Amino acid sequence: MMKFKETKRGVCTDGFKAAGIRKKGYGVALIAAYAPCKAAGVFTKDSVKAAPVVLSKKRVKGDIQTIISNSGCANACTPKGLEDAEEMASIAAKTLGLNPSDVAVASTGLIGKKLDLKTIKSLTKEAATQLSSSGKASLQAAKAIMTTDTKPKQYSIEYHGVQVGGIAKGAGMIHPDLATMLCFITTNAKLTKRILQSCLKKSAGQSFNMLSIEGDMSTNDTVLLLSSGEKVVKTSVFQNMLDQVTRELAKMIAKDGEGASKFIEVQFKGASTRKDAEKAAKAIVSSPLVKTAIYGQNPNWGRIAAKAGEVIKVKFDKMSITFSSNNGKAKVLSKGVGIKSGNAKTLRLARKILTSKEIQIVVDLGEGKSEATAWGCDMTPEYVRINAEYN
Amino acid sequence: MMKFKETKRGVCTDGFKAAGIRKKGYGVALIAAYAPCKAAGVFTKDSVKAAPVVLSKKRVKGDIQTIISNSGCANACTPKGLEDAEEMASIAAKTLGLNPSDVAVASTGLIGKKLDLKTIKSLTKEAATQLSSSGKASLQAAKAIMTTDTKPKQYSIEYHGVQVGGIAKGAGMIHPDLATMLCFITTNAKLTKRILQSCLKKSAGQSFNMLSIEGDMSTNDTVLLLSSGEKVVKTSVFQNMLDQVTRELAKMIAKDGEGASKFIEVQFKGASTRKDAEKAAKAIVSSPLVKTAIYGQNPNWGRIAAKAGEVIKVKFDKMSITFSSNNGKAKVLSKGVGIKSGNAKTLRLARKILTSKEIQIVVDLGEGKSEATAWGCDMTPEYVRINAEYN
Repeated sequence: MMKFKETKRGVCTDGFKAAGIRKKGYGVALIAAYAPCKAAGVFTKDSVKAAPVVLSKKRVKGDIQTIISNSGCANACTPKGLEDAEEMASIAAKTLGLNPSDVAVASTGLIGKKLDLKTIKSLTKEAATQLSSSGKASLQAAKAIMTTDTKPKQYSIEYHGVQVGGIAKGAGMIHPDLATMLCFITTNAKLTKRILQSCLKKSAGQSFNMLSIEGDMSTNDTVLLLSSGEKVVKTSVFQNMLDQVTRELAKMIAKDGEGASKFIEVQFKGASTRKDAEKAAKAIVSSPLVKTAIYGQNPNWGRIAAKAGEVIKVKFDKMSITFSSNNGKAKVLSKGVGIKSGNAKTLRLARKILTSKEIQIVVDLGEGKSEATAWGCDMTPEYVRINAEYN
Repeated sequence: MMKFKETKRGVCTDGFKAAGIRKKGYGVALIAAYAPCKAAGVFTKDSVKAAPVVLSKKRVKGDIQTIISNSGCANACTPKGLEDAEEMASIAAKTLGLNPSDVAVASTGLIGKKLDLKTIKSLTKEAATQLSSSGKASLQAAKAIMTTDTKPKQYSIEYHGVQVGGIAKGAGMIHPDLATMLCFITTNAKLTKRILQSCLKKSAGQSFNMLSIEGDMSTNDTVLLLSSGEKVVKTSVFQNMLDQVTRELAKMIAKDGEGASKFIEVQFKGASTRKDAEKAAKAIVSSPLVKTAIYGQNPNWGRIAAKAGEVIKVKFDKMSITFSSNNGKAKVLSKGVGIKSGNAKTLRLARKILTSKEIQIVVDLGEGKSEATAWGCDMTPEYVRINAEYN
């Protein structure tokens, strides 16, 4: 694996400024490039799409100079939502002296609530006065798009002058109607639009698509990548950099899962195909029964094996399962033989491992050489309480 | 829809006796016919299968005279599980003077725990002395296979002398490692083995397969149908009867879902295909976000719409959603226009509806004429607590 230097720039890589502001139940973030950028995007596959998704999907076909994003309202499933999204882009364009078509839009918040354009306008004007290229400005932008996220999410790296940085938000369904994962990434890498889009798609496949808080898809999910195109770089190096940025941001989202007390990484090895490995890893990390078991510090390999067997073909007598954390490592299932038929010492160790805040589950199918990793969090009574509350 | 007379016979339809006994953490149920019966079965699709599933799947290819089922141990994922399942069948056969091949076996309980054959033997002998054709005996059998079920589940009907009756168990993952839905159905209907199997498969498709407690599949799920063959009946009539029995038993399982405070029925209408309707109905009733919203008495149509859009193609501006219960009926989404943009009166009514114990959600896609119904329950902090506990 290539090693990249971590920086504190966030989305303020060379050629980009950012700002963020929160007021009146809304937040507005701006990410502004000095010049039009090649753009790429991946969006929710939900056939119920929020208006900003519909608009930005169209706009990223051309160059993009600025992203405006708000928290406080998803602008989804409302009459005239698309007009409101267009107006939001126009507000940003007017404020920054751009064409509206140079602006991409993303929203997160309540579904079915009308966008308050007056508030968007006043916050945008205020944010525009604070645009800066410092890492702190990027952090302000990350904070502005938080909803019930408990922490802003920002990650950036550099390699021989090539920079890739991103901010993200997401913590499950945050307000009762809200379910958004937003991620904005900037880079100074000089690559064609086609390559940028292909890299982003691959990268999202191994990061955000392997992430599950509760297995429900949002109407607003948006990942945007803007490139100022200042540095020549090999595609393979850029792909590696982008993969690391998206993976780290995905992990931050998992760690900040609603009501979560533990971060869970599921590494699924020994599968016959990459697709099988992905399917099984994601199914295990999404399973309410696995998630409640981890919450209860219960090294329950039976639930893990059953879930894997539900979604892919499993030969149980070849299957092994290991739990690990900073408290140690315990093989709880070894080629079809479980610890319950075995010894109390391993069981005690497994329980101790599960008292940690970060848990790794390694499942080895013993069939082939393909593997995949998925991230998520435990399910707690607090998760239910958060999601039961009406706004 | 045809109307059938409800009876209190359970699995003790003409030609069958039953018994059930619980002791020492185990329960044993016997369902015994007077003569070998044509048999049909549907089993878990999980590729990690418990030993009794492997055995019974083979045995139902021939005639079956007796079903022996135990609670307290799943006999899954243990070394020599298949030998233990065969021995369990032999114990029943010996006790009742049958060939082992005439006996089908089903187990429910902890995964990874070795079957205690000594206990099984003593309970089987005791149960055999209590075999009776009364409805009470069927209820004893239903009680013997309970784990954390709070109620035994039994339902039976009669139509011009044709009888169909069943018992079932299931309440989610009951002990931490346990995840079983068992159902045994008897009938005096005279039909070929091929027709019995085809009817059972269809019937399970519209009942147990439309049921979700938490979306996790078990290693032990088993539905068996035995026919004494005494009454001639049209296949279509029998299918109707069987559908009603399996549907009522499925609803009983949903109502007894672990930690559940509310029963949820999702009726998905106006889809282009039956498959789409089934997929969407089941996805909605399984969604943690929908389940927690119902627990919180939160008429959150946004989560329902987003979930439908995730699994099938939805034109949002044609979609309508209605909540109803014994407290009334409220259309919360009408062809893409939600109540949040609307009036507070409907919202108040919707909240009142959700205070009931049994909730119906009707989703109308406004596209075609296909529909499907799925059943489940809300998700509560109690659910998390139950599943977090280690045994």
